[in-house]
Amino acid sequence: FMSKLPNISTSIFTVMSKMAAEYNAINLSQGFPNFPVDERLTAIVAKLAKENVHQYTPMSGYPPLLSKIAVLIQNSYQRTVHPETELLVTAGATQGIFTTILALVKTNDEVIILDPSYDCYEAPVLLSQATPIRVTLNDDYTPNWKIIENACSSKTKMIIINNPHNPTGKILTESDFEALEMLLEKYPDIVLLSDEVYEYITFEEKHISAHTREKLLNRCVMVSSFGKSFHVTGWKIGYLVAPDYLMKEIKKVHQFLVFSVNSICQVAISAYLDLVSTAEIGELYQEKRDYFRQLLKNSRFKLMPCEGTYFQVVSYETISNENDVAFCKRLIIEYGVAAIPISTFYDDGKDLKLIRFCFAKDNATLEEAGKRLCAI
Amino acid sequence: FMSKLPNISTSIFTVMSKMAAEYNAINLSQGFPNFPVDERLTAIVAKLAKENVHQYTPMSGYPPLLSKIAVLIQNSYQRTVHPETELLVTAGATQGIFTTILALVKTNDEVIILDPSYDCYEAPVLLSQATPIRVTLNDDYTPNWKIIENACSSKTKMIIINNPHNPTGKILTESDFEALEMLLEKYPDIVLLSDEVYEYITFEEKHISAHTREKLLNRCVMVSSFGKSFHVTGWKIGYLVAPDYLMKEIKKVHQFLVFSVNSICQVAISAYLDLVSTAEIGELYQEKRDYFRQLLKNSRFKLMPCEGTYFQVVSYETISNENDVAFCKRLIIEYGVAAIPISTFYDDGKDLKLIRFCFAKDNATLEEAGKRLCAI
Ligand SMILES: CSCCC(=O)C(=O)O
Ligand SMILES: CSCCC(=O)C(=O)O
Repeated sequence: FMSKLPNISTSIFTVMSKMAAEYNAINLSQGFPNFPVDERLTAIVAKLAKENVHQYTPMSGYPPLLSKIAVLIQNSYQRTVHPETELLVTAGATQGIFTTILALVKTNDEVIILDPSYDCYEAPVLLSQATPIRVTLNDDYTPNWKIIENACSSKTKMIIINNPHNPTGKILTESDFEALEMLLEKYPDIVLLSDEVYEYITFEEKHISAHTREKLLNRCVMVSSFGKSFHVTGWKIGYLVAPDYLMKEIKKVHQFLVFSVNSICQVAISAYLDLVSTAEIGELYQEKRDYFRQLLKNSRFKLMPCEGTYFQVVSYETISNENDVAFCKRLIIEYGVAAIPISTFYDDGKDLKLIRFCFAKDNATLEEAGKRLCAI
Repeated sequence: FMSKLPNISTSIFTVMSKMAAEYNAINLSQGFPNFPVDERLTAIVAKLAKENVHQYTPMSGYPPLLSKIAVLIQNSYQRTVHPETELLVTAGATQGIFTTILALVKTNDEVIILDPSYDCYEAPVLLSQATPIRVTLNDDYTPNWKIIENACSSKTKMIIINNPHNPTGKILTESDFEALEMLLEKYPDIVLLSDEVYEYITFEEKHISAHTREKLLNRCVMVSSFGKSFHVTGWKIGYLVAPDYLMKEIKKVHQFLVFSVNSICQVAISAYLDLVSTAEIGELYQEKRDYFRQLLKNSRFKLMPCEGTYFQVVSYETISNENDVAFCKRLIIEYGVAAIPISTFYDDGKDLKLIRFCFAKDNATLEEAGKRLCAI
């Protein structure tokens, strides 16, 4: 059978989680929390189970959830969005990203992806018969807007940004946005796809959401994830914010790609949004980040900066000169800790001797991992 | 914005459910049950809410669920499938269908769709840059295999069948399968996509599942739906059965389209499969069908045969010569009952003065609908 995606193999997250399980290693590879979900949220689910929440929600999402998302956006960013025309609930951020790309990107279009990049952007670009143009970030993970601009042409249909950035934990600054806005002014047809699944997981710096920028909102599709924000990655509930002329196209694909999204979890999140404050989320993960960094302080790993996300990148340069995939495998087998090699986020496999740990774990897990990592 | 799907508009199910709500009509349009979900299943969900079931399941599905699906298939059809390589849990059957088509159908391929046809097949064919070839079923809704064979060529990549058939309730017979098998022998590269979301909702006749046919199983992708089988359409949990060389390609797309499926509902279904018998499902709906048919016996509607599914098709030929969309709208406004016009399942809008009622409703709802429909 001639594959449509001959170069696509099993995602690194699946590979590493599987290997972690095989070797009974502490799994700091795939990004998911291992601590209990907020009891207020699980109590809501337990109660809802007996109620009438088990049939199709409307195609765009459970209407009260859409309204609550609009309130969340108002409270977080003082931006007013229209729940019926500018919001869509998706089966996780991944489905939102895939659907957006498939709906908006056409044959022979080009899509700019910034490396290191999360692995789910490329397949929908290829399946749209378009060309991914990979542009490498600076070594400190700031975007080089000059190089990005050089990559733009009349063929460019979309630029994908990821902010806060997975795997590096970097967040975009005010001046990044100003540069991006200046660039985009020259290309009125480029759509900005902004993957902000960690929007509420930032630390010292304030997160700037692309869809709240006056100059971007009319061409920006923003993707968020309740799975990431509320530590329920298995629920697969995310959402999109987009101007209605783009949302119309996205919904055309969505209605035949999945039609609607898990009802009981949508209703649960809708109720939970009345109880939870998003500030709690950043605080929780800041504590985890700080704890994990402190645990590694006396290790031989060098800690990179971490401004947001679930992830701490470290350099093992002084420990080994193996490539990062080999090092990650040995880390599992010999030291019982699983991580993600950063080279897999580059199209060209650029290997800077960096690996990524997920610190969205309970303190006992982090402590044990820290102990093992300090023994290296 | 130039649409990739210029001719696709809001699905008829969304249109009719919305209109039913506006006019406070009894909604027998969109196919979803309104009776309570089995208490054994809701009890499982309530209990699971407090457990560790809220993070990503593996990409192909929750492993115990995959094993239980293999057992279900063994018990139902005496066929052995391999859980790891031949099964995939999807976010509803719709996502399974979309993913299969996008993974397997290429530019300039042709895909044969039998009209009247469910509305979700066309978009993924178009988005694959392929051509849907619509072939009309006989007026009694049997397939005319001669005409289908005439539509086949070296360009044909896929034939989509839907069995039991939505909207007509027709099921394929042994001799249909023999004809299909003879046809396919001439075309070794055609994939058979078999939408069997109502596989457990058949009445007098026994359902024949395409993937259990010796001559088909190596090219058949079968789609099923726990939402439909267990009256939880909102959960969006379905699955695919496919030979591993096709499943490999489908999983490549799946992992970047949605990655994984709602965890808590997967775990719940996995536990429920130990308790439920699929025979119950057919019996429950046969009673409902019989009850609804009896309620309409003295109406002016003519009842068409119904061998399976949630749906009863009726003719209103002797009541009105309006087109079926107009008639359905008037039925909502003047009589307070929502149905689906069958013409919307035809590419050419063929109007045989037929409409579809969903009888997956509690008896009180059916009775009240019956009263209203008998008043016409
Ligand atoms: C969908 S599995 C990957 C989870 C994740 O976001 C990550 O580990 O980066
Ligand atoms: C996905 S909404 C349509 C539900 C259904 O299967 C039908 O009504 O035919």
